[in-house]
Amino acid sequence: MSTVTTTRDRPLSPTPRSTLRRAKERGREDRADLHAVLDEALICHLGVVVDGAPRVLPTCYGVLGDVLYLHGSTGAKSLSSGSGTPVCVTVTLIDGLIYARSVFHFSANYRSAVVHGTARLVTDQEERLAGLRAIVEHTTPGSWDHARQPNPKELAATALLALDLEEASVKVRTGPPIDDEADVESGSAWAGVLPVRTVFGEPEPAPDLAPGHSVPEHLVTRAGAELGAAQARV
Amino acid sequence: MSTVTTTRDRPLSPTPRSTLRRAKERGREDRADLHAVLDEALICHLGVVVDGAPRVLPTCYGVLGDVLYLHGSTGAKSLSSGSGTPVCVTVTLIDGLIYARSVFHFSANYRSAVVHGTARLVTDQEERLAGLRAIVEHTTPGSWDHARQPNPKELAATALLALDLEEASVKVRTGPPIDDEADVESGSAWAGVLPVRTVFGEPEPAPDLAPGHSVPEHLVTRAGAELGAAQARV
Repeated sequence: MSTVTTTRDRPLSPTPRSTLRRAKERGREDRADLHAVLDEALICHLGVVVDGAPRVLPTCYGVLGDVLYLHGSTGAKSLSSGSGTPVCVTVTLIDGLIYARSVFHFSANYRSAVVHGTARLVTDQEERLAGLRAIVEHTTPGSWDHARQPNPKELAATALLALDLEEASVKVRTGPPIDDEADVESGSAWAGVLPVRTVFGEPEPAPDLAPGHSVPEHLVTRAGAELGAAQARV
Repeated sequence: MSTVTTTRDRPLSPTPRSTLRRAKERGREDRADLHAVLDEALICHLGVVVDGAPRVLPTCYGVLGDVLYLHGSTGAKSLSSGSGTPVCVTVTLIDGLIYARSVFHFSANYRSAVVHGTARLVTDQEERLAGLRAIVEHTTPGSWDHARQPNPKELAATALLALDLEEASVKVRTGPPIDDEADVESGSAWAGVLPVRTVFGEPEPAPDLAPGHSVPEHLVTRAGAELGAAQARV
């Protein structure tokens, strides 16, 4: 595997399908904005085409440099369909619901990233381990070194897909509702934002956990925190 | 528009593409399970095929009987691509992260629904209003009657898609990690569940909100609540 190069200061290069058509003012062109969204979210939605029809499945992911990794069982149809064919990976964070004066202007505050490309089935053993580690560390930071790492049999049962973060778009909406002037003046309805947050609760030990196990540090720091805050600490 | 019939007691009818191949024990066959997932989530991910490649976009939705509604600008490529062609709508709720003794058994507690079908562009004015109302009431309950309803110009700028909830699969994972016996006995790692919840914060009034507006009841009941709890109250 080649050395991982991080090029977050390189701008995103829009292609026709990654160029925003709607609400262009919400578009972000910096690669750093793409990574900020990918860093914070827990899961992505993977889109593939199977027999001419779209199939969208939620899954975990990890990022290493400018490569996004996805994993699954070697028997999973979504992964075998995704390897070598066009895929779309979408990551969405909902930050708030926009209550406007008119239902036409109802909206949401959100950050979303849409990545297009052709996924590659990873076969190099070193990259496979690094990619799986990236997925585990993205989803459950601190766990790769805490838990038992995969043995050869488990590795053989795990498929890893890599997707270059080359062709992507990022959209961000922030701020209050934007209403028509007449509706603002009429003052007939409440308007504002209802914040939405993803939070972690207190860890629930497994019923068969051996006695004497206290909650490890990498979980303590996450429990009770918000999604963004927890990720930022890692 | 025909009378809305609710048939939540009718079982889901699996087709080849809605039949689960992986982790079949997580599959649910009851239509009520599908509606429970759709009722609780805030957004869906809509998958369409554009020029042979998948495109996955987050969007709001609403449900009326056995029909799911999506809306967007009449100029939106994802909607014009979706009308009359196969679409996939996926809704995912993450309830917890599974910390296992081995990284191979890391997972998530989740509820997901995947709906396949051919979307239909709604042209009947009565159904258009009912569908838009369903979307607003799903995303921001209580708002259709509180805010100004769409005028003819706004309606003309809004496209509405309908998708029958006929061909769908539902997957649910609950409970603690399931580890290999040898790893449980070794007791070398902590194992358990880190709960994940979506919560609403306190409403933030718009800067230009007319004086004297207190937060309306339909927002008060939602603020500070969890996603599921808030929806259940509606």
